[in-house]
Amino acid sequence: MTFRELHYADLPLVLPNAWDVASALALRDAGFPALGTTSFGVAASHGVPDGGRSTRDDNVALAAALHPLGCYLSLDIEDGYSSDPDEVADYVGRLPVDGINIEDSTAEALIEPEVHMAKIAAIKAQSPGMFVNARVDTYWLGERAEVGETLARAARYVEAGADGVFVPGVTEPDVVRALAAAIDRPLNVLPIPGHSPAALAELGVRRVSCGSLPYRAAMHAAVRAATAVRDGLTFPDATPYADMQASLVGYTNDR
Amino acid sequence: MTFRELHYADLPLVLPNAWDVASALALRDAGFPALGTTSFGVAASHGVPDGGRSTRDDNVALAAALHPLGCYLSLDIEDGYSSDPDEVADYVGRLPVDGINIEDSTAEALIEPEVHMAKIAAIKAQSPGMFVNARVDTYWLGERAEVGETLARAARYVEAGADGVFVPGVTEPDVVRALAAAIDRPLNVLPIPGHSPAALAELGVRRVSCGSLPYRAAMHAAVRAATAVRDGLTFPDATPYADMQASLVGYTNDR
Repeated sequence: MTFRELHYADLPLVLPNAWDVASALALRDAGFPALGTTSFGVAASHGVPDGGRSTRDDNVALAAALHPLGCYLSLDIEDGYSSDPDEVADYVGRLPVDGINIEDSTAEALIEPEVHMAKIAAIKAQSPGMFVNARVDTYWLGERAEVGETLARAARYVEAGADGVFVPGVTEPDVVRALAAAIDRPLNVLPIPGHSPAALAELGVRRVSCGSLPYRAAMHAAVRAATAVRDGLTFPDATPYADMQASLVGYTNDR
Repeated sequence: MTFRELHYADLPLVLPNAWDVASALALRDAGFPALGTTSFGVAASHGVPDGGRSTRDDNVALAAALHPLGCYLSLDIEDGYSSDPDEVADYVGRLPVDGINIEDSTAEALIEPEVHMAKIAAIKAQSPGMFVNARVDTYWLGERAEVGETLARAARYVEAGADGVFVPGVTEPDVVRALAAAIDRPLNVLPIPGHSPAALAELGVRRVSCGSLPYRAAMHAAVRAATAVRDGLTFPDATPYADMQASLVGYTNDR
């Protein structure tokens, strides 16, 4: 199946989000056919807060590093790192990936939908095969978090050429259902506790991005491992050294 | 307490091992007064296998990035990235850290103890205040894994100026006790399942390095988070986004 076709299967495409080579190898080895990335994880692992357009260059390097893994890759590029549609399109044109995620907010505030439309149109004009997942940040930011505003934005992004629509932050099943029914492209949501992919499929969801959850679970587990040693508790499960080392050796030899 | 004094407290110093800024922030925020690093984690997060002298430049950058955190820092520098003692000493002299860990093996094979002694002596001559933790890799590599050989090597490293001795891979309490009794410097071991710091203290241990355990626990948890989403299972615990973001903002503002 192509990356696009994975969005039209019986169950939603679940995208695990990597932040570096080792996390991507581990997620690929767990059987995921396609990977996303988390700009939060990319920024944090470089010591920078999320959302400040800090991941521009690191993401170029990450895309190149993950290309040899042999799975589909969708890159989280924040807002495209520019308000100039041509600059955004040029940036995306350099990425050896199957899809990108681009958000309609900058510095924690929604941008005008016309600006986002122009970015999407410019990307599709230059990279027609790129799966453009247009993020609507109404619910994520809690700014104009209404079905009507979200649908209005989604419709314009689809009109501009978006291949999918991502609405992070929605958790109410009725809202998810309403969005999925009215948006003429695969709807992407973040994981909703207590809702399996099958349950989300019934609401109309076609893609579930793990977002920063794997990264934040990793950080939690690192701390838990160290405090367990300190406090004399049972150590948490850990990937065997030999498995990781073998995967890294294979990756290095393949390059 | 100074970093050195932490090796002479009632309980062993437990060093959690970070691999980047975010992991170091999370471990510092969990209350650890001193951090180690894991060369495996540093290498892996850059997409490179462990043990190939690949972390030389990344470790310089990591030491500089972690310096503002305000906790003691001991850096894992593999074998010092050279067989030339002066080159090793020059490298260590550039590091803004409180201690280093240097191993007596290169490319998975023990080196002559005379070479390791010369490195330690050169480091201490140039950086007298640096806490040099000399690693004896007999048990780690399973090569001459005997108490006699290990003690012979340890004694020579102490003679050369080592401030501590690290014997990763020992798990037998009787071996740990014999090593601690005979080595005239704080003994460092990896965590031993079922042995609390207090239990290790009774064996004579003065420092416990978590090694790659936090990093491997992190990778395990990342995969588990993604597979839980995919398979409709309960999501594992994760550090809240807001906590990590606040810590990163504080770190950035302090620099």
